[in-house]
Amino acid sequence: MLYYLFTYLDKTFDIPGAQVFQYISFRAAAAVLTSLFISLVFGKRWINYLNRKQVGETIRDLGLEGQVEKQGTPTMGGLIILASILIPTLLFTELTNTYIVLMLFTTVWLGGLGFIDDYIKVFKKDKRGLPGKTKILGQTLLGIVVALTMYFDPSVQVREKNVPAREIVQTIDATGPMSRFSTTETRSTKTTIPFVKNNEFDYAVLLKWIGPDFRSWAFLVFIPIVILIITGVSNGANLTDGMDGLAVGTSAIIGATLGILAWVSGNIIFADYLNIMYLPDTGELTIFISAFVGANIGFLWYNSYPAQVFMGDTGSLALGGIIAVFAILIRKELLIPILCGIFLAESLSVMMQVSWFKYTKRKYGAGRRIFKMAPLHHHFQKLGYPEPKIVLRFQIVGIFLAVLSIITLKLR
Amino acid sequence: MLYYLFTYLDKTFDIPGAQVFQYISFRAAAAVLTSLFISLVFGKRWINYLNRKQVGETIRDLGLEGQVEKQGTPTMGGLIILASILIPTLLFTELTNTYIVLMLFTTVWLGGLGFIDDYIKVFKKDKRGLPGKTKILGQTLLGIVVALTMYFDPSVQVREKNVPAREIVQTIDATGPMSRFSTTETRSTKTTIPFVKNNEFDYAVLLKWIGPDFRSWAFLVFIPIVILIITGVSNGANLTDGMDGLAVGTSAIIGATLGILAWVSGNIIFADYLNIMYLPDTGELTIFISAFVGANIGFLWYNSYPAQVFMGDTGSLALGGIIAVFAILIRKELLIPILCGIFLAESLSVMMQVSWFKYTKRKYGAGRRIFKMAPLHHHFQKLGYPEPKIVLRFQIVGIFLAVLSIITLKLR
Repeated sequence: MLYYLFTYLDKTFDIPGAQVFQYISFRAAAAVLTSLFISLVFGKRWINYLNRKQVGETIRDLGLEGQVEKQGTPTMGGLIILASILIPTLLFTELTNTYIVLMLFTTVWLGGLGFIDDYIKVFKKDKRGLPGKTKILGQTLLGIVVALTMYFDPSVQVREKNVPAREIVQTIDATGPMSRFSTTETRSTKTTIPFVKNNEFDYAVLLKWIGPDFRSWAFLVFIPIVILIITGVSNGANLTDGMDGLAVGTSAIIGATLGILAWVSGNIIFADYLNIMYLPDTGELTIFISAFVGANIGFLWYNSYPAQVFMGDTGSLALGGIIAVFAILIRKELLIPILCGIFLAESLSVMMQVSWFKYTKRKYGAGRRIFKMAPLHHHFQKLGYPEPKIVLRFQIVGIFLAVLSIITLKLR
Repeated sequence: MLYYLFTYLDKTFDIPGAQVFQYISFRAAAAVLTSLFISLVFGKRWINYLNRKQVGETIRDLGLEGQVEKQGTPTMGGLIILASILIPTLLFTELTNTYIVLMLFTTVWLGGLGFIDDYIKVFKKDKRGLPGKTKILGQTLLGIVVALTMYFDPSVQVREKNVPAREIVQTIDATGPMSRFSTTETRSTKTTIPFVKNNEFDYAVLLKWIGPDFRSWAFLVFIPIVILIITGVSNGANLTDGMDGLAVGTSAIIGATLGILAWVSGNIIFADYLNIMYLPDTGELTIFISAFVGANIGFLWYNSYPAQVFMGDTGSLALGGIIAVFAILIRKELLIPILCGIFLAESLSVMMQVSWFKYTKRKYGAGRRIFKMAPLHHHFQKLGYPEPKIVLRFQIVGIFLAVLSIITLKLR
């Protein structure tokens, strides 16, 4: 809303300095600072309130060191994260932008779902919370909304560029980059894929077998893919949220990477220079994800080891969902297995552990384990590594994966 | 050196994929990954070696919690940092680039100075190490070399752009950005300064009082400024290095910010779009600072709480010096008080503590203290905050300052 105010001031009264609000980079930086400020100030009050209400998480007894101390740490801190994402977004973005509307919807929808879950667990003292089926239904509905909007909304556009890289390295075109991009394409199911020529993949080709007008039905293949990605990443973030600062730290690193990708994809000059898909209007998403990064880092102030608050499902369902939808909107979702490698490893460790245990139990009568404990971070804890060390090392791996996922964009 | 190899392969044999080495972004990402790899692999071996040789730091007894455990942790881990900076730089940069030569010199020079200091302390068992005067002399000599090279080397150039911001926001110029920049300027003592018109300041104007040909003597004012910045930041980093992971974490954040600034300053398209000084050939510095960031993050693997190794002066003298020289080379050194605010606060806390103590001792007979203990991080430790919490919060403040220093570039 400040965006509208300053744009108005700039255009009407020509107030010096007001035009900085036209810059996405400026508004993105302002969003980070605002979300940090909100999470630090609002966080402190919210934690005090939760402590008075005694909203402590009941912690499963895993026989891990230092666990007893965690008993009584308040949960539902996720509301701090949600507020620090939503307020800067409302202040600094163009609210009529389709992408921003989708991200706001994602945040409120999944945050709300998680909040109901936490509310039942904490206040109704019902440890089961929301049934798993309800959560998956919620994520599925979100996936359908996102997929259909991306397919049918005419403001969701793609423009490509098929000039050999050699020709554009360090040269400046006399006619400007506009001419090198394809004409605007809507109803596109194209995405970015590493290692192949032009780094491009169209989901529609999966339907080629149905006949010549397969492109008209592309949304049928797009919807399940979007749902799969949203539930996968959301679940991965949820599992990762089991150590002080682990989920937010990892999400901050992923968010920063997505921010860079959104910034360059939404700017025709940068997209031209870097030879990537140009996605008109996605630049605004940079501001949203900056607030997201700020919210995660700000929450870390209280959530880092030793934590004074946990985010609960209010936070962790939303974190993963936001990352998934954001990656889909900027058409970089096929980078998720690398970029969100920590979430993936945590999910895989649980799947491997559970299925191997079941298999060996059937075969040998007694279940065997691959990891000392799943998810993966508890395995290292059982091996005797201190909790802050594990968290920090997971984040270093996260940074490694982030750089790796950017590098893949150059490999074709 | 890989840069030369692949450039050769690309130009001579037209090997597909070899041209990615032309991209600074690709080489920067490769440098991060390589430095992370070196620090993790080489770090492990080096720590094992140090442990066998019993090169433990003798820790002053400050009466702090957990301090006794630190006794015996090996020091001189800084060599891991130096190796992880130098090797990727040698592999991926253009080694004839003046800026790269200066950064390599800075790293080896200050690293060597710190190494001699550590060597005397550890192996000669002389706790005093190198005399303080020798260190300052070393930093002064470095400052003179840097200042004179920047002033007299014809490859060190500045190009400015004086188009009102309004005209270039989101417009694409038909004639390309080249024409909007001033002609190349050498022997420039111009720098970037926030809050003022054009964000520009010329150190030469400080000499205006000497007469009309004051510009010819500009290097006389430039040399002491460069020396002051190098000694200040180097000393600040040294004082900050008193808690597990604090100095490297802070340096990684500062390094990443400087990397973004170098990337956009050295690219005419980005510099044009963002309306900042264009500094030809500084793009290569992005690769150097990427190795620097990777080295810091990699070192954190072993140096984070609880630390298995300390960097010693080998690391901390070099860290600060590298940051200072790098900021000077990309003419953003006036952002240092904000960007390196953590170093500044640590230095100021010591100065305030010492001078207040001396003053009150003279006045009242007994010295009084402002902080429970200086440098600042020990003050919070005395207040009862756990070490990993203090380190992480200092780094959140560091991120806040990094964003703030970027935002100031837009304010004029």
